[in-house]
Amino acid sequence: MTYPDPERGFPVEEFEQRTSRAQKLLHESGLSALLVCTEPEVRYLTGFHTPFWQSPTRPWFVILPLSGKPIAVIPSIGESSMSETWLDDVRTWSSPNPLDEGLSLLSNVLKEVLSLNSKPFDEGLKVGLPMGNETHLRMPLNDFEKLKEEITPHVFMDATDIIKSLRCIKSEREIYKISRICEIVSDGFAAIPNLISTGMSERESFRSFRMHLLELGADEVPYLVGATGHGFSDIIKQPSDRIIESGDLIMFDTGSTFDGYFSDFDRNMAFDFASDAAQSAYKIVWEATEAALQIASPGNTTSDLWKAMGSVLETESSLDDSVGRFGHGLGMQVTEWPSNTSDDGTVLCEGMVLTVEPNLIWGDAHIMVHEENFVIRSDGAQLLSRRACPELEIIR
Amino acid sequence: MTYPDPERGFPVEEFEQRTSRAQKLLHESGLSALLVCTEPEVRYLTGFHTPFWQSPTRPWFVILPLSGKPIAVIPSIGESSMSETWLDDVRTWSSPNPLDEGLSLLSNVLKEVLSLNSKPFDEGLKVGLPMGNETHLRMPLNDFEKLKEEITPHVFMDATDIIKSLRCIKSEREIYKISRICEIVSDGFAAIPNLISTGMSERESFRSFRMHLLELGADEVPYLVGATGHGFSDIIKQPSDRIIESGDLIMFDTGSTFDGYFSDFDRNMAFDFASDAAQSAYKIVWEATEAALQIASPGNTTSDLWKAMGSVLETESSLDDSVGRFGHGLGMQVTEWPSNTSDDGTVLCEGMVLTVEPNLIWGDAHIMVHEENFVIRSDGAQLLSRRACPELEIIR
Repeated sequence: MTYPDPERGFPVEEFEQRTSRAQKLLHESGLSALLVCTEPEVRYLTGFHTPFWQSPTRPWFVILPLSGKPIAVIPSIGESSMSETWLDDVRTWSSPNPLDEGLSLLSNVLKEVLSLNSKPFDEGLKVGLPMGNETHLRMPLNDFEKLKEEITPHVFMDATDIIKSLRCIKSEREIYKISRICEIVSDGFAAIPNLISTGMSERESFRSFRMHLLELGADEVPYLVGATGHGFSDIIKQPSDRIIESGDLIMFDTGSTFDGYFSDFDRNMAFDFASDAAQSAYKIVWEATEAALQIASPGNTTSDLWKAMGSVLETESSLDDSVGRFGHGLGMQVTEWPSNTSDDGTVLCEGMVLTVEPNLIWGDAHIMVHEENFVIRSDGAQLLSRRACPELEIIR
Repeated sequence: MTYPDPERGFPVEEFEQRTSRAQKLLHESGLSALLVCTEPEVRYLTGFHTPFWQSPTRPWFVILPLSGKPIAVIPSIGESSMSETWLDDVRTWSSPNPLDEGLSLLSNVLKEVLSLNSKPFDEGLKVGLPMGNETHLRMPLNDFEKLKEEITPHVFMDATDIIKSLRCIKSEREIYKISRICEIVSDGFAAIPNLISTGMSERESFRSFRMHLLELGADEVPYLVGATGHGFSDIIKQPSDRIIESGDLIMFDTGSTFDGYFSDFDRNMAFDFASDAAQSAYKIVWEATEAALQIASPGNTTSDLWKAMGSVLETESSLDDSVGRFGHGLGMQVTEWPSNTSDDGTVLCEGMVLTVEPNLIWGDAHIMVHEENFVIRSDGAQLLSRRACPELEIIR
């Protein structure tokens, strides 16, 4: 007997909508099918959700035809899980099998799908595959070369734009999951003054914060970086055994998940006291996030967000380009398209979930980062993270 | 002030040994450099360790020349962290930059490295890149096509065997980290009777177990799957809201980490009572692990392990091929080369860390899996996981 959690997973309707949007885009692009092999894309089209992807041994494939449901071509170890999704057609091979790691099955199913196409089969049809920025191919390169030969005269064409436009706009069900994890993490940050104190090591403080996020309801804390000290120059750091001292700043940045959807924001605090320089840097970066949040409305662009943040920051420092952007998309991955950069220019649309993440170089080559998560609504940004204090919070 | 933990990271000597082994293999294979772009390979050669890889936006590259230290070609956001490793030469670009995502920098550094080679430059040299089973290319396919053109007349050649033979044999320092996490997880499994009881949901039991592993000293619990019920057919499952009942079996399989090294084993227990069929299935699979552990000595092969397990299992059921193997390598990833299959045939060598993982189909299409972790020593298997009970443990 099972008790399904109404907040978990998605109804079939959600996948039908995703599939139908994807198929419309395939048609418009002159593509006859879509092939995906990476975790977020497979999950997006099927609902298949497992940490098993961490094992590099087995490739997993989903083919989306021009009509009908996606078809899974997967190792038999996943058959039971995949059969519980909304898919009807799950083809499997016994894996690992280094001599034929799903390749003949995959090429046969691809050719089968293409043969149903109304276009002349002999001329060679186009199969969409993500090949552009922020994508990669999760199968051995040698096997991909063989696959290209196998499906000749058909060819693979870049489908990055299709995946990007599908995943950039979140459904209300997706937004709910992101807002839920943002709420949990906001509660987690609020508890830091009770969890962490001077005399603890960085490593102890990471452990304590991670455990508290789980206790509050995060499913997992896959991404946790941070630093302590009078300032720090590394913002993607793992903990050391450094002991937290009075006057230290502490920064945590976490991507935690609820039902496979991420939060991604950080908080900066200080123990007992903080220098004027640290307090001032904090205030400037907070103002930069504020400037971006004020203009995060449909019709403006990611570059407008970048400019709004940059104009606050450049009064105080030369713009730092080491991080390369001032925020990004957020959802099934801790970072997604688009990027808030000077030339990204993505037009903000309702349903986009984004971060703003300006950073400032201050003091002795130190870096201060603030981040907030929000969704674009018709009337502007709706915050999903609980807004950071305008002033640096001092833990006493 | 920092307090380095002697158990964390590796001394430079470890990286010098890895590099020198790799360069010897490059020489023997007629390769003039090695290019890697995946997390374990970059970490293996440099020590660079961050969860930032979860962001798909930026590619990361390390080039190993035929002599000297590896060279990092990475986004500037990683410069501070990478500069703290043993590397001297860290080249960066400001990323994201979709128009040139490190490509021109990478091809220039590659050509620079190749130009130092004693072989005639014009003829085209061979650059090793993992392209075979269990590998993938973590950069956009479009960029890789451009990179191939850029470095012409030089070409990429498959270097999977080099990476495989490097990583298959663990150093004592690596074995220490794996044994440490196996000890922590063994303590975690031992605590299950006190942590989990009937009336809890699967989801609550997952959360409780995950938090306890962190409390015991695991850095992270990236891989946790499991199931409850009178039996189950899915062994890579995420938790549901099913309530645990008297007479249920519970199975957890976790890949937890200490300092970036994984454990990977499971345990099966029952609440209050268990059917004769469940107890018998448990005993048979336990005997299968025992048979493999007895012969896990240098000179035998992974296929010998497979046969030893298979011969115990086939007395009771037809051999199940849905999992595809009866165990695998273990280390920086939750699964690594080699695989215990009928035809893998890898010769066991001292320093290999492996799992045995036989599975049995029993009852109503249920699956029972046992797993242990061990290192190959001159006189046989040294267990790293604390041996499972020979009889199904009943939680009362």
